[in-house]
Amino acid sequence: MGKRLVVIGGDAAGGSAASQAKKRTRDLDVVMFERGRATSYSACGIPYWIGGAVTDEAALVARTPEQHRAAGIDVRMRTEVTAIDTARQEVHWRDLDGGGEGTEPYDDLVYATGSVPMRPPVPGMDAAGVYGVQVLDDGVALRKELDSGRVQRVVVVGGGYIGLEIAEACRVRGLDVTVVDLSATPVGTFDPDIGEFLADAVRGESIQLVLSDGVVAVETGADGRACAVVTASGRELPADLVVLGLGVRPNVRLAVEAGIPLGTSGGIAVDARMRTQVPGVWAAGDCVESLHRLSGQRVVVALGTHANKQGRVAGINIGGGYATFPGVIGTAITKICDTEAARTGLAEAEAEGAGYSFVTAVVDSTTRAGYFPGAQPIRVKMIAERRSGRLLGAQLVGRKGSAKRIDALAVCIWNEMTVDDILSLDLSYAPPFAPVWDPVLIAARKALEAVEADPR
Amino acid sequence: MGKRLVVIGGDAAGGSAASQAKKRTRDLDVVMFERGRATSYSACGIPYWIGGAVTDEAALVARTPEQHRAAGIDVRMRTEVTAIDTARQEVHWRDLDGGGEGTEPYDDLVYATGSVPMRPPVPGMDAAGVYGVQVLDDGVALRKELDSGRVQRVVVVGGGYIGLEIAEACRVRGLDVTVVDLSATPVGTFDPDIGEFLADAVRGESIQLVLSDGVVAVETGADGRACAVVTASGRELPADLVVLGLGVRPNVRLAVEAGIPLGTSGGIAVDARMRTQVPGVWAAGDCVESLHRLSGQRVVVALGTHANKQGRVAGINIGGGYATFPGVIGTAITKICDTEAARTGLAEAEAEGAGYSFVTAVVDSTTRAGYFPGAQPIRVKMIAERRSGRLLGAQLVGRKGSAKRIDALAVCIWNEMTVDDILSLDLSYAPPFAPVWDPVLIAARKALEAVEADPR
Repeated sequence: MGKRLVVIGGDAAGGSAASQAKKRTRDLDVVMFERGRATSYSACGIPYWIGGAVTDEAALVARTPEQHRAAGIDVRMRTEVTAIDTARQEVHWRDLDGGGEGTEPYDDLVYATGSVPMRPPVPGMDAAGVYGVQVLDDGVALRKELDSGRVQRVVVVGGGYIGLEIAEACRVRGLDVTVVDLSATPVGTFDPDIGEFLADAVRGESIQLVLSDGVVAVETGADGRACAVVTASGRELPADLVVLGLGVRPNVRLAVEAGIPLGTSGGIAVDARMRTQVPGVWAAGDCVESLHRLSGQRVVVALGTHANKQGRVAGINIGGGYATFPGVIGTAITKICDTEAARTGLAEAEAEGAGYSFVTAVVDSTTRAGYFPGAQPIRVKMIAERRSGRLLGAQLVGRKGSAKRIDALAVCIWNEMTVDDILSLDLSYAPPFAPVWDPVLIAARKALEAVEADPR
Repeated sequence: MGKRLVVIGGDAAGGSAASQAKKRTRDLDVVMFERGRATSYSACGIPYWIGGAVTDEAALVARTPEQHRAAGIDVRMRTEVTAIDTARQEVHWRDLDGGGEGTEPYDDLVYATGSVPMRPPVPGMDAAGVYGVQVLDDGVALRKELDSGRVQRVVVVGGGYIGLEIAEACRVRGLDVTVVDLSATPVGTFDPDIGEFLADAVRGESIQLVLSDGVVAVETGADGRACAVVTASGRELPADLVVLGLGVRPNVRLAVEAGIPLGTSGGIAVDARMRTQVPGVWAAGDCVESLHRLSGQRVVVALGTHANKQGRVAGINIGGGYATFPGVIGTAITKICDTEAARTGLAEAEAEGAGYSFVTAVVDSTTRAGYFPGAQPIRVKMIAERRSGRLLGAQLVGRKGSAKRIDALAVCIWNEMTVDDILSLDLSYAPPFAPVWDPVLIAARKALEAVEADPR
């Protein structure tokens, strides 16, 4: 008489929740619905598969439906959940290929529907030839277009992480690529003094940047396909293909219809154990909101690493264990060819928005001792709370070997360290790995000086 | 009527103390004695200069005597302090080249004499042809020997960090190199399951390893020069040159003679502000002992990064400011060609010695998403306190891009995080930089499982 767990969505969050719950409670019946053709794949890897750095689509899949089934999970592929009845504790489903329909009862439900790409509400945005890159099937469709040979000019709408990754992928394939973004520098979540390095790197790849400009229309040709992107400043950018890189929003339609409450951010509201406000219903992944530990606000952050952790937490709790997801601090990392950038905590505008008063410090240093062969430039920025000196945010940009150093600063922020504390940290040092004053420590020194210089 | 600061030793600690104090108190007279030919140089860079990776000796010098003088410091090069009179508050000095002698009064004294290479007390260890690599002048002498062309066979006594770096440098120069070490794996401060990777890397460079064996004698030829190293197991290793890589001990002779107390570890005892137990006398760098924040014991750690921080702290306090050095946690990093290794906190034997009961977890993963080109193997080991789950130590070994990741774990240990806490950290993720479960997080998961499996 095992209980029954139903999981909606078979990617990172859903797959992790199903696996963890099943592992802990062998007599639990687990049914996982996935409307696409793949389970547990790396959405973040799609741009690299499109660009050819990853040659095999199957490599993106961490766990196939067959592997999930071997673990005792009843996986229903290409099957969409069309409604949730939280009173009867059942979901309605439809087989997208065969056309069959049915109902599945649950004791526990995990809502892990992910996100959908943002589409600006402008004419032509739904035309043929306009692609999002959110699920693996999107990537398959986009890659098929690129492989067709009829695409030469690509316009990427939005210069965020995914936008730039797709732009680089298309450039690697020899296409003409233009990126349009509202911000003054690409990846607007970086401050401009970091973003300008990314802009240089993007231009260095011969990718055209149209910045501080928005898209007002997608024009379509006689065949109904997108043929150009028109911007607010009046530019008309010819395009054989348009890719959306504006980020994503949580896929909450089903939840809203079922009366599962959202939070202030528009994501599904969950507690620390990933419970929604409806008994028996859990949620995890891109569709939920998380506590931002610095702003104290709820935010939606679509990132595979959170989705995996949240799915694991939900699965452990459903399986009778105890685990919590304590929130996020906004860590992110990206690269354009050999230029790497990363951030953690709050950027300047975010810190202002959260009500903090702060000082900043920016230092230019090298990844190795300056005299050591292969030393690469690295810029470190720190944002520290005025008076207390607490580190509120950090950003790094540089060449190879720069960006993953953000993790040490993420741990500093997680532990609410001050720049004065950070200055004393016992970080690793040897000439092939860092100057004797690590760039991170130099930045902390400068930030401390800024805090001390402004003690109001 | 400025006060007078005398600094003994002009490398990292002494130079930093002099600079900071002078910067904060312009009317302070600062006299810095250095018995060698260089100030503020990177001792850690010497092996790379010997190997040729660093081509210019001058590149190792962060600040020349002239630069110190331009900052208002009265630098006395090639001048050895021969005695300290703490009652009269003066030091006696001797000009090593000119032969002059004199006395210099002080209000504050910084003792920053560094360390001396350990020499096992066996016959022949003081013979010509046996070199330490501690100060830049040692490196100059050693390099001159190597450049002479009469050296083909080098035996390195001790396979620690410096020993291996020198071994690699000699190998790069095409010499036959053998490393002798008492430990079962090189760099005995790593646990054997990490050290075995280093052993493979060393052998991969065609460096001969003689492990679990000690040196009992250095044989000398008719010319009085070292010609072979004899080990406890009876091996006789022919050597045109012998290099000491056994580590160092604090250079405390002068301090002992002056009655400046040492601590239990044999280094000079200092408080958090770097004050010795004698009024007006400060100490910093390789010659002092520091609090190990995990064991609670005092330890001597000779490392440029600590020396710089301690010198800065002493200088700030002497200059009327306030700063403290809060101790160390044993972070270290090294590489042998493309194999990188790093550690922080306590190794197994150290944790046992400190009285901890613990569990361990070892995971093998990749530096990037497994499907991403250039993903390199990385092994992460964690040592967590039993019951509490507090991270006591971590070790990493892998290929390029592995080792600097230790910093995030150093910050975890610094903040006394448990492996359960670490598991939730918001570390950076994108396929070119990490698998979606970062190796560090996987290790924390495994360590948590080990803690939970052994709740006694």
